[in-house]
Amino acid sequence: MKKVRIGLIGTGYIGRCHAIAYAQAATVFALKGEIVREMVAEVSPAVAKAQAAALGFARWTGDWRELAADPAIDVVDICAPNFLHKEMALEAIRHGKHVYSEKPLALSVADAEEMTRAAAQAGVKTLVGFNYMKNPTSQLAKEIIASGEIGEVVHFYGTHNEDYLASPQAPLDWHCQKALAGLGALGDLGAHIVNMAHYLAGEIREVSGDMQTVIGQRPDAKNPAVLREVENEDQASALLRFANGAHGVIETSRIACGSKMGLTYVVTGTKGAIRYSQERMAELALYQHEDAAGRQGFKTILTGPAHPDYAAFCISAGHGIGFNDQKTVEIRDLINGIAAGDPMWPDFAEGLQVSKVLEAIAVSALERRWIEVQGTSRF
Amino acid sequence: MKKVRIGLIGTGYIGRCHAIAYAQAATVFALKGEIVREMVAEVSPAVAKAQAAALGFARWTGDWRELAADPAIDVVDICAPNFLHKEMALEAIRHGKHVYSEKPLALSVADAEEMTRAAAQAGVKTLVGFNYMKNPTSQLAKEIIASGEIGEVVHFYGTHNEDYLASPQAPLDWHCQKALAGLGALGDLGAHIVNMAHYLAGEIREVSGDMQTVIGQRPDAKNPAVLREVENEDQASALLRFANGAHGVIETSRIACGSKMGLTYVVTGTKGAIRYSQERMAELALYQHEDAAGRQGFKTILTGPAHPDYAAFCISAGHGIGFNDQKTVEIRDLINGIAAGDPMWPDFAEGLQVSKVLEAIAVSALERRWIEVQGTSRF
Amino acid sequence: MKKVRIGLIGTGYIGRCHAIAYAQAATVFALKGEIVREMVAEVSPAVAKAQAAALGFARWTGDWRELAADPAIDVVDICAPNFLHKEMALEAIRHGKHVYSEKPLALSVADAEEMTRAAAQAGVKTLVGFNYMKNPTSQLAKEIIASGEIGEVVHFYGTHNEDYLASPQAPLDWHCQKALAGLGALGDLGAHIVNMAHYLAGEIREVSGDMQTVIGQRPDAKNPAVLREVENEDQASALLRFANGAHGVIETSRIACGSKMGLTYVVTGTKGAIRYSQERMAELALYQHEDAAGRQGFKTILTGPAHPDYAAFCISAGHGIGFNDQKTVEIRDLINGIAAGDPMWPDFAEGLQVSKVLEAIAVSALERRWIEVQGTSRF
Amino acid sequence: MKKVRIGLIGTGYIGRCHAIAYAQAATVFALKGEIVREMVAEVSPAVAKAQAAALGFARWTGDWRELAADPAIDVVDICAPNFLHKEMALEAIRHGKHVYSEKPLALSVADAEEMTRAAAQAGVKTLVGFNYMKNPTSQLAKEIIASGEIGEVVHFYGTHNEDYLASPQAPLDWHCQKALAGLGALGDLGAHIVNMAHYLAGEIREVSGDMQTVIGQRPDAKNPAVLREVENEDQASALLRFANGAHGVIETSRIACGSKMGLTYVVTGTKGAIRYSQERMAELALYQHEDAAGRQGFKTILTGPAHPDYAAFCISAGHGIGFNDQKTVEIRDLINGIAAGDPMWPDFAEGLQVSKVLEAIAVSALERRWIEVQGTSRF
Repeated sequence: MKKVRIGLIGTGYIGRCHAIAYAQAATVFALKGEIVREMVAEVSPAVAKAQAAALGFARWTGDWRELAADPAIDVVDICAPNFLHKEMALEAIRHGKHVYSEKPLALSVADAEEMTRAAAQAGVKTLVGFNYMKNPTSQLAKEIIASGEIGEVVHFYGTHNEDYLASPQAPLDWHCQKALAGLGALGDLGAHIVNMAHYLAGEIREVSGDMQTVIGQRPDAKNPAVLREVENEDQASALLRFANGAHGVIETSRIACGSKMGLTYVVTGTKGAIRYSQERMAELALYQHEDAAGRQGFKTILTGPAHPDYAAFCISAGHGIGFNDQKTVEIRDLINGIAAGDPMWPDFAEGLQVSKVLEAIAVSALERRWIEVQGTSRF
Repeated sequence: MKKVRIGLIGTGYIGRCHAIAYAQAATVFALKGEIVREMVAEVSPAVAKAQAAALGFARWTGDWRELAADPAIDVVDICAPNFLHKEMALEAIRHGKHVYSEKPLALSVADAEEMTRAAAQAGVKTLVGFNYMKNPTSQLAKEIIASGEIGEVVHFYGTHNEDYLASPQAPLDWHCQKALAGLGALGDLGAHIVNMAHYLAGEIREVSGDMQTVIGQRPDAKNPAVLREVENEDQASALLRFANGAHGVIETSRIACGSKMGLTYVVTGTKGAIRYSQERMAELALYQHEDAAGRQGFKTILTGPAHPDYAAFCISAGHGIGFNDQKTVEIRDLINGIAAGDPMWPDFAEGLQVSKVLEAIAVSALERRWIEVQGTSRF
Repeated sequence: MKKVRIGLIGTGYIGRCHAIAYAQAATVFALKGEIVREMVAEVSPAVAKAQAAALGFARWTGDWRELAADPAIDVVDICAPNFLHKEMALEAIRHGKHVYSEKPLALSVADAEEMTRAAAQAGVKTLVGFNYMKNPTSQLAKEIIASGEIGEVVHFYGTHNEDYLASPQAPLDWHCQKALAGLGALGDLGAHIVNMAHYLAGEIREVSGDMQTVIGQRPDAKNPAVLREVENEDQASALLRFANGAHGVIETSRIACGSKMGLTYVVTGTKGAIRYSQERMAELALYQHEDAAGRQGFKTILTGPAHPDYAAFCISAGHGIGFNDQKTVEIRDLINGIAAGDPMWPDFAEGLQVSKVLEAIAVSALERRWIEVQGTSRF
Repeated sequence: MKKVRIGLIGTGYIGRCHAIAYAQAATVFALKGEIVREMVAEVSPAVAKAQAAALGFARWTGDWRELAADPAIDVVDICAPNFLHKEMALEAIRHGKHVYSEKPLALSVADAEEMTRAAAQAGVKTLVGFNYMKNPTSQLAKEIIASGEIGEVVHFYGTHNEDYLASPQAPLDWHCQKALAGLGALGDLGAHIVNMAHYLAGEIREVSGDMQTVIGQRPDAKNPAVLREVENEDQASALLRFANGAHGVIETSRIACGSKMGLTYVVTGTKGAIRYSQERMAELALYQHEDAAGRQGFKTILTGPAHPDYAAFCISAGHGIGFNDQKTVEIRDLINGIAAGDPMWPDFAEGLQVSKVLEAIAVSALERRWIEVQGTSRF
């Protein structure tokens, strides 16, 4: 079986989740390629060494450029902070590596375009870690919509709200700095719900956005007595018009008290509707208007082996899969895409398209007018 | 005790609910005035007579003008179709009657302004039947916000979605005709959520709206083979900026499959959040960010005697009050307002302010730009 | 139309709810008889007079025997404490009055039998205020079961839990005294769930019960420094065998922290199941096993005009009815039963049958053995 | 680091889950020993070889006795059908292996006692795969109870209901045969809820049980025209008395339409309560009676890094862990127990104690009397 040798850059929050998924993927799925946990890059050789040991990788380096250039690496998996995505991806592409990058793809549309173009020209494969669309429950949502069970989609409401910066005392970190994060809540969280909107309801063609930095200053991380400027938005909302004629709204916030994993959507069609909250990631609520009078209602479907990719984890319904299991599905797509040419989505083109929507929302908010979104994500 | 003699115009859906509330109000509350169910006006003397008998009113008329002019009437209660509100209210005011009108107050801001001015000049009292803000649960929401328990409000998301016109086969009725209904979902349902936004989060200062007629033609009610034009919107959404700096979104739809009583809100503050759905009208979910680590979460509070106006119905928590009970609270406000000068809210000024917001959303949608909203509802 | 003249004994908690329901019933329903709120009896003439005025009754008395004997009374409505039910009912029956009594019917099976026999011999009609089975949602549950939509019932789990005595500091009141209340949680709350079990799943034939007084002593209501003995059970549970072969369990508690209106049931059949909680009294969850693979789940049906007795309150689904509205349905049954001979359930025979089950549970708990239950409630 | 070499017998449903957990455990946790996936035993060499390859094990055998005797195996992990547990465990113990067995430990108390005694005499370590108590959410429940946040436990209600045999057309499989499964729903599912009751509420001292085979005959798996006898119970319930004085009820069913993963519990204390459903395995509802008047309610806590063992999977709250992740926690306990002598629970002694409770329920149901349960699980 063809080996797919992974070079992982970054082993913080999401890099660790990638590593867990790599560890279990071959046991969960009958993969078309062999995962080789080849090398870890971290901020120093010492950290890299320790993390390679902890996460089951064979080699390590304190210099990610070394990893990108290493001939024994097939895929560069970028889990570094957002501001490094572009440089790392371009370097990996230059060395002919496939690239698996965390979202958001880049800090700007221009950067995302450059990366997408470079990958296309180099003929390498790409995947962006949007993650949530890999949950069997959201795959079920897609299946229900695609099959026409709720008719034509007429409305999409989606959120990705969290509260990790809800406290004004939470210190200023890289999320709040334009040079490191680009957009605020939009880039960090909004990227997920835009991707989900694409997946479930199709291309977004126009947006009217609004955004706001609610907590304008935060304590310096090292010296809390010093207040520093927050440079990007805490919350944002946008009216949407989809290519297929549907209307919609998305919202995102990093100060939404009480939302711990507030990716939610309500998709309304001409014949029914679905409702989902990632905090109850094993449940999809389905309403069908043609049900008998007196027997209408939202049905809570617990994801199970009748739904996409669930049975690989457990053959009984309602037993539940977790956050990292979504990543495992994504990594299955990565491995089968690279080893066997299976479709690999969402790719850089989709990452770029998400960036276009996010940037359009930000520009719309600044210029206070509707903005058209160009391009296509080809889901 | 001072008598408050009611003349009820219209005994359809909501008129009947008013009648039920009049019937029980004096038993539920220790009112400051005596409700006299004096007269019913309906489309014909026969209907009026039958309805007066059914609903416990003493007299009847087939001509609402007669009712408006009747010296034995103190309050004209307008439950007639929207397009008649203005004419009826002005006529009642001309005769010096207090006016209790169902929402929306009028088909246009201009009409609502004329009515509000006339009432003010005549010195009569007014009340608009927004209803849902009278639920003890939403009064609790107000209390929590006002007391600062969730800090400063930073975001409001609200909906009033229903699905009464979800089926494309549903015949065209007066709701779909501009001359009879004015706005579509915005006027019929959106009025409620705008009023609730005012109540909970304060004045709305700017809007960017979008709206859509999804089902462009519907069968004629009498001759289903004939398709007729739908003249107003099926669904609408708007970005909001509040006077206090909060941002928000409201949405409304009459084709939202599965939403039967989809008035919902999420109010997010700097220290917490509340969530509510009218379909679970006895529950308010409260989140407080300062709860101990590992003990954070939304707490489902069941409305009970510790909350405003609940104990009048039942002295045990969680036993539940219903739709008509909200009306009963509203009628308590009506009677005490007229008999004893207690504050009567939401009055015509608020009805006008709601119209201004709705019209701003519609204009914004047509002109595709942000619109400023003037005036104040003085909650 | 035939007058039905009501004499109401007791205007505390539940008496007040009766009065509210009397006030609205004729407006909600097209009754077959005319409700006359004739007379109130209370502990003193002064209280009676005040309450008659507050609740819309014409006359009053400080002596309930006067009410029972009054020739202008057709129905004696007993909302007095449990220990008085028997004496009052027998006196009313002696005067040829119909009797509408709150639950539990009596403090013992022997008393309930005497009352039931007396009513039958006198040919008067009876109704027991079990209340919850009148909710359109529970009527829908009955309809679903009766129609075979969930197949044959194989299991019933029901609770009626509240927490009104959860605090050990809550003073000893009449609920805790055998002579005044009879059984504890079983009599006060368990009566409801036994009635509901009868209604939904049929006769109970055998029980194995357990019960417990958790808080053995409580402060005296007037002198909290003095601790007094609690004489009956705080919580009880029982295994059940139904006449139709189904098995089940019921539980009841007055110290169940967090349960405010914890009447709940899960009825499982060979083809499906229903779930209900009175705290969400507008919702019934229905599961049908024959739904397509991947589309199974509990459907949350919001009660609406397609369901029994709902449309009389409101013609839109999901708008909700309240606790007193259930009473209004019960009073509709009372009036139509007395004025027009419509069936009146649950009658004293059912009240007696409930007492038999409760007493069997208590005896079973004491003797630690299965007990057979005789008789039938003839639902 | 000390190696812990695993021999896995059986790779069906739960064996596969074990394998997935072994694959990820070392990446999730900083283990105190090195997991070596040494050998798989299956029903034939061919199956064993294929499964070893699929599940990442080094060697394979078609004869489990070979595995039990293999000197390179430290732990025998028994995921074979129930009726084989005893023979396999005894053989493994005979060879001085540690034993990790799926539940139920054995088909009878006598067998479980023999196994427990043998393990003790041989000085090998044991673990039983009860699984659900390893969920951070249920560990949180334990923490809340142990810390006194809900006071003294006064009541436990628990279920483990599923519907895998709800359809009468479901063919007779080994679950329905006494010789292969022992008890029916009690053994397969009830074992989990008894273990959970032990974990959360302590020792069970007395039971009064009932059980029922609802579908007496099922089609033969190979020849559906032939009906065969179902030999054990489809559903069972029991009243419980705990050593600490609490009362309770447990129920279990394999024909509970709609319950896919129906392990649920409600634990009521003198100062609060908790509620849990495994179908929403990331949520625990906590009620505290001392909350301010008007602010009481069940708080839905989403499991997160503040709770036991969650942060190893993901450092953000509410992101969710899955069924196999529970197993991963269990395997962490296994490895750390064997490699470093950390406590390993639930061990065979607990497996035995669960068997005693289950057998007591079955005997109680047959003899229709309360049965005392001996012994202790020493949680």
